[in-house]
Amino acid sequence: MSSPNCGRREAVSDPGTLRGEAAALDAADALRAKRAEFVLDDDTVYLDGNSLGALPRAVPARLADVVGREWGRLRIRSWSESGWWTAPERVGDRVGRLVGAGPGRIVVGDSTSVNVFKAVVAAVRMGEGAGAGGRARDEILVDAGTFPTDGYIAASAARLTGCRIRAVPVGDLAAAAGPRTAVALVNHVDYRTGRLHDLPALTAAVHATGARIVWDLCHSAGALPVGLDAHGVDLAVGCTYKYLNGGPGAPAFLYVRRDLQPRFDSPLPGWNSHADPFGMAPDHTPAGGPQCGRVGTPDILSLLALDAALDVWEDVDLTAVRAKSLALTDFFLRCAEAYVPAGRVVSVTPVAHAERGSQVALKAAPAEAAAGTMAELVRRGVVGDHRPPDLLRFGFTPLYTTFGEVERAARTLGEVLGDVLT
Amino acid sequence: MSSPNCGRREAVSDPGTLRGEAAALDAADALRAKRAEFVLDDDTVYLDGNSLGALPRAVPARLADVVGREWGRLRIRSWSESGWWTAPERVGDRVGRLVGAGPGRIVVGDSTSVNVFKAVVAAVRMGEGAGAGGRARDEILVDAGTFPTDGYIAASAARLTGCRIRAVPVGDLAAAAGPRTAVALVNHVDYRTGRLHDLPALTAAVHATGARIVWDLCHSAGALPVGLDAHGVDLAVGCTYKYLNGGPGAPAFLYVRRDLQPRFDSPLPGWNSHADPFGMAPDHTPAGGPQCGRVGTPDILSLLALDAALDVWEDVDLTAVRAKSLALTDFFLRCAEAYVPAGRVVSVTPVAHAERGSQVALKAAPAEAAAGTMAELVRRGVVGDHRPPDLLRFGFTPLYTTFGEVERAARTLGEVLGDVLT
Repeated sequence: MSSPNCGRREAVSDPGTLRGEAAALDAADALRAKRAEFVLDDDTVYLDGNSLGALPRAVPARLADVVGREWGRLRIRSWSESGWWTAPERVGDRVGRLVGAGPGRIVVGDSTSVNVFKAVVAAVRMGEGAGAGGRARDEILVDAGTFPTDGYIAASAARLTGCRIRAVPVGDLAAAAGPRTAVALVNHVDYRTGRLHDLPALTAAVHATGARIVWDLCHSAGALPVGLDAHGVDLAVGCTYKYLNGGPGAPAFLYVRRDLQPRFDSPLPGWNSHADPFGMAPDHTPAGGPQCGRVGTPDILSLLALDAALDVWEDVDLTAVRAKSLALTDFFLRCAEAYVPAGRVVSVTPVAHAERGSQVALKAAPAEAAAGTMAELVRRGVVGDHRPPDLLRFGFTPLYTTFGEVERAARTLGEVLGDVLT
Repeated sequence: MSSPNCGRREAVSDPGTLRGEAAALDAADALRAKRAEFVLDDDTVYLDGNSLGALPRAVPARLADVVGREWGRLRIRSWSESGWWTAPERVGDRVGRLVGAGPGRIVVGDSTSVNVFKAVVAAVRMGEGAGAGGRARDEILVDAGTFPTDGYIAASAARLTGCRIRAVPVGDLAAAAGPRTAVALVNHVDYRTGRLHDLPALTAAVHATGARIVWDLCHSAGALPVGLDAHGVDLAVGCTYKYLNGGPGAPAFLYVRRDLQPRFDSPLPGWNSHADPFGMAPDHTPAGGPQCGRVGTPDILSLLALDAALDVWEDVDLTAVRAKSLALTDFFLRCAEAYVPAGRVVSVTPVAHAERGSQVALKAAPAEAAAGTMAELVRRGVVGDHRPPDLLRFGFTPLYTTFGEVERAARTLGEVLGDVLT
């Protein structure tokens, strides 16, 4: 491999050495017991938990009970007796602990896209009439490297609220924000490169201009400490099916800072966000708490599957998760450096720990080799994913990925690239 | 009971007669075999399927397979190999058969509220610049008796698109629609009274003014034939957890008439509604088919639970469902007339078949007795629900409700009202 920090092919590529090191790292891993709480098979190295997390063992039995007893036997009574009605906030509080949000800040429900829409429109409305010279803040800034849906939804929010939208590289966002800026929408971790952005600094910089900031935590929630409350973040969204292992398409979450909840003017004021949802009043009076982010009837089966999936986090410290995440990605980069023929891939993931999420993306050369390389990797039991045109993406989930798997993945990648073109 | 068609107390209230009649009706019921496909207990008469449908027996095993094998073993591969990615349209087609929509008109996903938002905003955009004298159509009409969330969401759509909103009783809608009307949002069946509105006539009347119509089918889908394609309906939404038995908070559906799909300009253009969702392009190019109504990643567990729940419909003819539904509500009204002391309740559900959905709502006198009456009914094993201030609501699900249960429910209601105040 050619890496930005090390252009030369590393001399030592003896698998024995790195395998031994992997074994030692696994033996010393403070989180090693967590792997047993997931359904995994030793034939496959699953490095796609940044797309869909593995199944926690607690989920099937819990979901069977939700379906068979709560729905099947109690039926309508479960809305109160089984706590269905309050599940969006209850599960939200559990997610909150993992992203540094105190109780009562988060609701779970809807997709990330829908939550981006609520957050961006609500943020624009918080800034109305508050810009320079009394003019409305009418600009939405969006991370130029954003996952596409955030950009599409932000553009729709701009169109509907009479704002203009401007895509800006994250590095330029602090300078770009100004008195016309209503809100900046930023991805905490870039979904392609795995670059981690500086949430505290960027939040402070955007706040200094009087604007709001919405963070998309899809690729950081459950992978590293976030500190939403501590850094005064206004609004945040994120999905729960990546590092939180909530299941395919599990409901997303929406964070609204406590003091902003009474000012959260939702563009999707469904009956669930009404201050008195069962009053069936003809006009909408917004709920003042985290319920302000709800819309329609919560999707109970998926929500309670997520609830069960969150059990694995009960005894987990995010600091330990972050430490292992960095150790895994460091080790993968070293192994790839050792095993992969020079010139075939180059890492686009930052070397600096402060700028790295929990994935590594390797740019393939030639670009056309990327898809075939990933297909062959999967055939050989190493599951990452391919993001066109030329990225090979590997996600590392500290709760279940072992260093032994990391060594095997890099070694297999080296073998595939050696076989394919040599 | 006092009913609009019959002010006098019926002379015959011999339970033996009505029980015998119930037994004969059950014996002749063409749908009687369907009940065995649901989890029900004979101790409870469940007349709340218009709020949450009972659990179809096929669901638990299917969901266990989706969780254990598709998610647990195949993981990310299931997006293609298990057909997850195309499930919103595939399940949509199955719902389509039940509401008179051909393949490729419906997607399943999001909540009803979110789908109302998409439909109303998209309808307004279809009419832009098309009103009288070249002026924009800038008025949204909404059924004055609507389920509240539809009104809240329509008001939000109006605010965001620069329209005004006007609530009009359904009976006046045809006259109220005019050259400024962009869209009318109407409930097919009133959630309180159970009144069925005339979909073909109202659709034609609104179309005659050049406006669009959005039908909310929450209380009709699975209860009676709808005929969306046949009547040229523009857009429709509905939930799947009432008569379609999809489970608590199961994803809702959105119908977009075939010729309108290329013009469906969604206010929630997520990556799933992109013409090339995996191209990750920075700009949104809308999908031309039913995918135009998708937003974010589909909620697979709930969606496939619904898919399994729809199996019960495979051999069911909606005409038979409608016939039994009317027979059930007719019989309930007769039994209530016979058993309930005069003056204690009056039906607010229309007597005419053409104006009746699949529920009966009884207005209690005095109003304060309603909550206690329903609580006591539930304690005695008859589950309906109470809608404040004074409505006792009973839903009849033709696939599993028996005439014997109807007789028991009315008899128990009579006993409760007799016990409570006599």
